[in-house]
Amino acid sequence: MTPIRLGMVGGGADAFIGGVHRIASRIDGDYTLVAGALSSTPEKARASGKALGLDPARSYGSFEEMAEAEAARPDGIEAVAIVTPNHLHFAAAKPFLERGIHVICDKPLTATFEDAEAMAEAVAASPALFILTHNYTGYPMVRQAQAMVAEGALGRLRVVQVEYPQDWMTGAVETEGVKQAEWRTDPARSGAGGSIGDIGTHAYNLAAFVTGERPERLAADLQSFGAGRQLDDNAHVMLRYASGARGMLWCSQVAPGCENGLRLRLFGDAGGLEWGQENPNHLWFTPHGEPSRRITRNGAGAHEAGVAVSRIPPGHPEGYLEAFANLYTEAAGAIRAVQDGAPRAEVMGKLPGLAAGQEGMAFIRACVASAREDAGWVAL
Amino acid sequence: MTPIRLGMVGGGADAFIGGVHRIASRIDGDYTLVAGALSSTPEKARASGKALGLDPARSYGSFEEMAEAEAARPDGIEAVAIVTPNHLHFAAAKPFLERGIHVICDKPLTATFEDAEAMAEAVAASPALFILTHNYTGYPMVRQAQAMVAEGALGRLRVVQVEYPQDWMTGAVETEGVKQAEWRTDPARSGAGGSIGDIGTHAYNLAAFVTGERPERLAADLQSFGAGRQLDDNAHVMLRYASGARGMLWCSQVAPGCENGLRLRLFGDAGGLEWGQENPNHLWFTPHGEPSRRITRNGAGAHEAGVAVSRIPPGHPEGYLEAFANLYTEAAGAIRAVQDGAPRAEVMGKLPGLAAGQEGMAFIRACVASAREDAGWVAL
Amino acid sequence: MTPIRLGMVGGGADAFIGGVHRIASRIDGDYTLVAGALSSTPEKARASGKALGLDPARSYGSFEEMAEAEAARPDGIEAVAIVTPNHLHFAAAKPFLERGIHVICDKPLTATFEDAEAMAEAVAASPALFILTHNYTGYPMVRQAQAMVAEGALGRLRVVQVEYPQDWMTGAVETEGVKQAEWRTDPARSGAGGSIGDIGTHAYNLAAFVTGERPERLAADLQSFGAGRQLDDNAHVMLRYASGARGMLWCSQVAPGCENGLRLRLFGDAGGLEWGQENPNHLWFTPHGEPSRRITRNGAGAHEAGVAVSRIPPGHPEGYLEAFANLYTEAAGAIRAVQDGAPRAEVMGKLPGLAAGQEGMAFIRACVASAREDAGWVAL
Amino acid sequence: MTPIRLGMVGGGADAFIGGVHRIASRIDGDYTLVAGALSSTPEKARASGKALGLDPARSYGSFEEMAEAEAARPDGIEAVAIVTPNHLHFAAAKPFLERGIHVICDKPLTATFEDAEAMAEAVAASPALFILTHNYTGYPMVRQAQAMVAEGALGRLRVVQVEYPQDWMTGAVETEGVKQAEWRTDPARSGAGGSIGDIGTHAYNLAAFVTGERPERLAADLQSFGAGRQLDDNAHVMLRYASGARGMLWCSQVAPGCENGLRLRLFGDAGGLEWGQENPNHLWFTPHGEPSRRITRNGAGAHEAGVAVSRIPPGHPEGYLEAFANLYTEAAGAIRAVQDGAPRAEVMGKLPGLAAGQEGMAFIRACVASAREDAGWVAL
Repeated sequence: MTPIRLGMVGGGADAFIGGVHRIASRIDGDYTLVAGALSSTPEKARASGKALGLDPARSYGSFEEMAEAEAARPDGIEAVAIVTPNHLHFAAAKPFLERGIHVICDKPLTATFEDAEAMAEAVAASPALFILTHNYTGYPMVRQAQAMVAEGALGRLRVVQVEYPQDWMTGAVETEGVKQAEWRTDPARSGAGGSIGDIGTHAYNLAAFVTGERPERLAADLQSFGAGRQLDDNAHVMLRYASGARGMLWCSQVAPGCENGLRLRLFGDAGGLEWGQENPNHLWFTPHGEPSRRITRNGAGAHEAGVAVSRIPPGHPEGYLEAFANLYTEAAGAIRAVQDGAPRAEVMGKLPGLAAGQEGMAFIRACVASAREDAGWVAL
Repeated sequence: MTPIRLGMVGGGADAFIGGVHRIASRIDGDYTLVAGALSSTPEKARASGKALGLDPARSYGSFEEMAEAEAARPDGIEAVAIVTPNHLHFAAAKPFLERGIHVICDKPLTATFEDAEAMAEAVAASPALFILTHNYTGYPMVRQAQAMVAEGALGRLRVVQVEYPQDWMTGAVETEGVKQAEWRTDPARSGAGGSIGDIGTHAYNLAAFVTGERPERLAADLQSFGAGRQLDDNAHVMLRYASGARGMLWCSQVAPGCENGLRLRLFGDAGGLEWGQENPNHLWFTPHGEPSRRITRNGAGAHEAGVAVSRIPPGHPEGYLEAFANLYTEAAGAIRAVQDGAPRAEVMGKLPGLAAGQEGMAFIRACVASAREDAGWVAL
Repeated sequence: MTPIRLGMVGGGADAFIGGVHRIASRIDGDYTLVAGALSSTPEKARASGKALGLDPARSYGSFEEMAEAEAARPDGIEAVAIVTPNHLHFAAAKPFLERGIHVICDKPLTATFEDAEAMAEAVAASPALFILTHNYTGYPMVRQAQAMVAEGALGRLRVVQVEYPQDWMTGAVETEGVKQAEWRTDPARSGAGGSIGDIGTHAYNLAAFVTGERPERLAADLQSFGAGRQLDDNAHVMLRYASGARGMLWCSQVAPGCENGLRLRLFGDAGGLEWGQENPNHLWFTPHGEPSRRITRNGAGAHEAGVAVSRIPPGHPEGYLEAFANLYTEAAGAIRAVQDGAPRAEVMGKLPGLAAGQEGMAFIRACVASAREDAGWVAL
Repeated sequence: MTPIRLGMVGGGADAFIGGVHRIASRIDGDYTLVAGALSSTPEKARASGKALGLDPARSYGSFEEMAEAEAARPDGIEAVAIVTPNHLHFAAAKPFLERGIHVICDKPLTATFEDAEAMAEAVAASPALFILTHNYTGYPMVRQAQAMVAEGALGRLRVVQVEYPQDWMTGAVETEGVKQAEWRTDPARSGAGGSIGDIGTHAYNLAAFVTGERPERLAADLQSFGAGRQLDDNAHVMLRYASGARGMLWCSQVAPGCENGLRLRLFGDAGGLEWGQENPNHLWFTPHGEPSRRITRNGAGAHEAGVAVSRIPPGHPEGYLEAFANLYTEAAGAIRAVQDGAPRAEVMGKLPGLAAGQEGMAFIRACVASAREDAGWVAL
């Protein structure tokens, strides 16, 4: 199949997530990167474009310029990846949405709640697809977990334990030239949430994706342990679900020994499930009263929902990039389906989109509001 | 050395914890069990005494009778183990304390707060020692963790994550003839706390023991998932420490796949520690910015504090019974020191006593109070 | 029940295994240690006896003296534990066997093959029981593994992988005052086998116990990596079973990072099993074509064969000492049965005895013979 | 940089390894697949080419046709991936080597020793590069292990333990329509080695790559457990190194519960290392006498040698495909260097090539020869 012509906003040299998106777009061969506005500094943008082998004519100094020029070309981009810091997500997505160019945007949705509303309007007004890369939902064993919960393997859900600890901000790295830390600790660029926005939303999204349930209320105790840090770098959250289930969410950027320890544990009256991102090819399942089973990706006991997004045999580990690629590959399918005339509402499948982004924003908003009220309960 | 003459209240056939205390008392040879009031039913008591090889004359029908008779014998018991359900702890301990017989009591301190106060008074009025078997503090690697924290291995403490999930009450076992579940779900016998009293106090105590810090306030969301269950069987608690550290505590009796998953994770500005009870011979330590180290009991990197309570070489696992025995062995040392004239205040060392019991009661009280106020913050 | 009167030969201060035997004899309360010849140096023997609280009159300077004196007492010992270095096993056991005192002997059977034959004769000529403490067979999950194999869980056995790596002799510790290393590296005291005698026999015994099968032939490549070391400190052995199954056995005392890494993996045409000594409460079972199951001691999926030798609930770890105690407890049962008139041949149950010891000696002999012939195949 | 034009021989629908090569070639964007002879059946070849989006004119019915046609095009392929069953490796590589087209060939080198010699001659006679995809050497932590050993972290190497167990051929899958099993169990297509050729060579290669040492002699006990199976499906091999080090190698296709359990453990007089393919982002290192350290990919303690071939932050797992891609990416660098005039001998870096292939063939040959002589020692 002809690859989809892809552009990218952000993701120049030194950026972590831009490279991830590029690899993810290549793994299954569904995209070809043909244009970019890779940095907010035009010179850097062009240098990065050159390093990536972009046609200089399509390496733009700004996203507005890029949207306009590409929309005018017969071979212009069909989709664009937005991989800027959070505060630019909406501004960057807007001109593409307006021109019907599909948007694949990194999370969280935006830095501000105003932007989030504006994004929602822009998406509503556009024929284009909007995909938000809540990439952990692309892991095969997360898909299996979702399917098992939906099929009743846990019975009635009682307890949700989800956590995402990291340690890279234990020291004052934002003062030591670490760019990734600089914007993440700056409310103007990151938004009202620090760790809760950057990784807490991932934990929240993962739990929501797998359980299919949403908390009604939460109580959040946010901390900023780093000296002079304005945004939270550690958060303790209690969750109450409409169904009666209860949960805890912990995210941290100051937990030495933890790298990307996203982990979900679910307990129902009929069984328990556990999955961790750092060894993502295993899913632990305990039917109550029986021994725990280690289910492997594509192995014995693998569910069709996970097999469908798995590439290689069990025991050969797939990782973060393959999970990310699953979103890109499903996005390619959705884009082609829309191009073939399918209604936008019918093509998203398991892909996270605007709604997931809005839920993430609501989670951040509720956490911040709760924290302001001494970690009191706040409706979601 | 001549073994200490030990009596036991409770712990007849079918009881779990009585057998544990008996084994723990035997492991290092410091005690000899010579008397008992092993059940509240006199017949059962005598049958259990016979099964254990007690002299029938010293197998009593009640603890009052036992206290009186033993105190009158020249070879009477020097110490008594109280292993009844919680609501009898005070009543059973009292006659022995009054007669200067040392008491080794299972936790929590008592079922009611009134009893706890009465126990405090009885202990204060007695020359005898009072030891509360918060047994997890007897694990060598817990001792090492405490020493490392005290010596600054973590720097300034920031985050405490402690949990104790079990799954044995996932179903309605208290209605199916499981005695252990019957009294634990009965407020009259267990007290105001369900899971928080039974295992939450262990988690709380472990964190306090290792960190040397105490929360000032907590917010507790208690749940009773089991149908018709009056006491909590799952609890989510947020903790705020005077030092600025924050914590989360989770305990559960309804988490399928979890057996006795007591686990403590601590994070400071200089490092992280992790220990879990189910594989207790390992302690994970990460100096911030260095690889994680797996420190083994009695192995390379073992701290004197743990080596001192370890019996066999690294790689030969010690377990729950050895940790429990460490309390008994230290209690024997304390009893002999007191018998040799040392002041009671100077012999307890790392042994948990009345204060640990009172802290546990305060924890239960605060959790219940918080839960009544929609999980609002309560001072401890 | 009245405890069995136990004596001990060897096991004075500084000895590791003597302390283990003493704790093991106490855990279930079936023995009382009343006599000892705790060291080959009479003064040390008496000092050790005093430290252990033995009646000075029963703390002997030699095992001959002890055997004679104890046999003459109406309250003399009923059983004796032999925990000397290997070369004294026979000499120490002999006078007790001759007097009908039951012998619990550490492994391997003896240092020399001559002694092994003499031991066999002495056992045959005695009415006493002879128990050899192949202690790893006392682990509950090893018992379960044996039962599962016997019941056909693996189908037809194909592959045996067993290993026992340690690291404590990586350096030249025998020249640095480590007593445990001194006699173990001395052929006169240890016998013809170094690592194969000390730990290889454990690995061999474990595989034999669990599989119920015996190799017909082996090929052994023995190495002495330690400078000047006369006995093997690392061994690679290939095994061929009469049934057609094949195996590998590795033991090492020079493998940095390994403490007591005894591990058994079995594979048949219907499934696989894995057990490791360092986390002994778990047994991994994979029915072919299904997910692996983690079976826990006394937990869901636990087999009666393991439950029978387990003391506490799942998730509360039992360890090395409890496994060792299981042999002592079963030995107590066997001794009492014999005392009650049961034929010696009918009381041993799963207890390892002379036959296990002879098999261990045959294993050592075959390994040494194979190594001398360039690791050629040798019949067992 | 302009992607390298790549062709592929083999790898049509149903083939596992062809898809792996394609993804590996795409991950870093260094290749574009433009031609193929994807199946030995011309119709299948064309159908597979269509499915992959190849220009029909460049989807060939045979590799000879493809080599001739592509060599004649100005935009012809610069490199070809050979992913056929083993017996076609040489025949397929030959026409490309003759035309100076670089060859990336799956392992083992060939099915027969005659073909291996012919391949060596063809490579020698060609200006093209020859890369053999011993892909496990592409894992970052394998690179780190190699660097650490070279820098002396283990001191003098003593013991090598390497294993590669699988379970997928436990049953008679070759009779049940599993294509992957059919040719692997057929000597005509697979060569003289079954499991030793398919996965034993990977284990052998991994040990050689990391240690930098080669065994002088080996003794191999080969088994065919599957009914009617002509080639080995399980192998036990003892190794003797020139340096005095000794090793064991186990590979199996009939070990239920094992998926792709490639694992390497190395022990020297100064330390030990352990790495396993199923959780490849961790490397365990134990300096003798210190606690074990868990070194993570790109994390604290990561070595430049591994960082250089790592794409994403620690804690975000990379897997099999990224390791495979590392070989493709390094091959692209080598191809471009040769195109820029660098001597072929100087561009291979850590890439496995003809020599690694010949060593693998020598390993297979020696194993088969040893097995024929009752597992006697054979020189390598």
